[in-house]
Amino acid sequence: MADRRITAVQIETREREEMIDVTATVRDIVSEGGGDGTVVVFVPHTSAGVTINENADPAVQRDLLLWFRRLVPPTNEFAHAEGNSDAHVKATLVGSSVTVPFVGGVLRLGTWQGIYFCEFDGPRRRTFDVMIQG
Amino acid sequence: MADRRITAVQIETREREEMIDVTATVRDIVSEGGGDGTVVVFVPHTSAGVTINENADPAVQRDLLLWFRRLVPPTNEFAHAEGNSDAHVKATLVGSSVTVPFVGGVLRLGTWQGIYFCEFDGPRRRTFDVMIQG
Amino acid sequence: MADRRITAVQIETREREEMIDVTATVRDIVSEGGGDGTVVVFVPHTSAGVTINENADPAVQRDLLLWFRRLVPPTNEFAHAEGNSDAHVKATLVGSSVTVPFVGGVLRLGTWQGIYFCEFDGPRRRTFDVMIQG
Repeated sequence: MADRRITAVQIETREREEMIDVTATVRDIVSEGGGDGTVVVFVPHTSAGVTINENADPAVQRDLLLWFRRLVPPTNEFAHAEGNSDAHVKATLVGSSVTVPFVGGVLRLGTWQGIYFCEFDGPRRRTFDVMIQG
Repeated sequence: MADRRITAVQIETREREEMIDVTATVRDIVSEGGGDGTVVVFVPHTSAGVTINENADPAVQRDLLLWFRRLVPPTNEFAHAEGNSDAHVKATLVGSSVTVPFVGGVLRLGTWQGIYFCEFDGPRRRTFDVMIQG
Repeated sequence: MADRRITAVQIETREREEMIDVTATVRDIVSEGGGDGTVVVFVPHTSAGVTINENADPAVQRDLLLWFRRLVPPTNEFAHAEGNSDAHVKATLVGSSVTVPFVGGVLRLGTWQGIYFCEFDGPRRRTFDVMIQG
């Protein structure tokens, strides 16, 4: 029988731009249900996103944020009055969801992969959905 | 029982670069079937894509297109003879699909989120698939 | 009954940066199982990714790699000691998975679409997962 299970997770971000490792949260939710399938981590915000990247050296996460600022600096060329268009562009570059297969309740992440909530306009209270399709 | 349902949607774009809100179309298709699951919006083109971003202030969409042109300008450094390599690069930056969870036939989009078909080499007749996995 | 089937595929890359067409591999796996659903191609690496783009003119793939190098050059501004932070940024820009619907065992790819494994820090032995949700 198809298993459809959604969990809404709350987090608080502390910086304007920040990558928060949410791998353990996703792993626990997948592990509870067991079985095979995919999990979708979905971010319901337009100035934040989610990506998978290296979990070993925290310098990689800093380099990512550095380069995203370089690619999309806050600039007065943007029309959007709230002044956070750079965050919206970054959200689209990163994407609003990641999909990860799992087998026997175990995520098929590579050794160095972590799942990161990407804050581009914090600090804020944020949420994300963890949707199991088993 | 697993529900698999695909709908092909036709649209016509009017500009070379344009973001077209297709949220209502996706919402209606998901609503018809009800239940829980995920919906995948898939774009079968290589010079267009799909993203989720703010649906309130249209300036955000203009800012996105502005910055994508800044990041990937049409340039004679590209080898592809059709002269639309910038559109291909933008398509890969944005991505060819988005995945959104739904519960009880209701999309789990955030308040400010809309689903946008991204035209990067129009105007053209385009299609996209809406695939339900309920 | 829900069909969940995962296949791990091995490849060897030969350049630092390279796009490898894996469409035929994915097509064969989907064709074997038949039916309707989606296939997820997932890359368990943090300096490689996967994208969908044009399969006709190989110049498009060279243009993509050219522009990704332009957007994220190897630079000594990065903190990560391994010196491959540009590859990590590119991996996040491209993404770690693509999702493609299929009907009757046939991928719903557009005429000009191919699925490309994107190497950004090769040459290396790499793997990717092909996960069927039928």
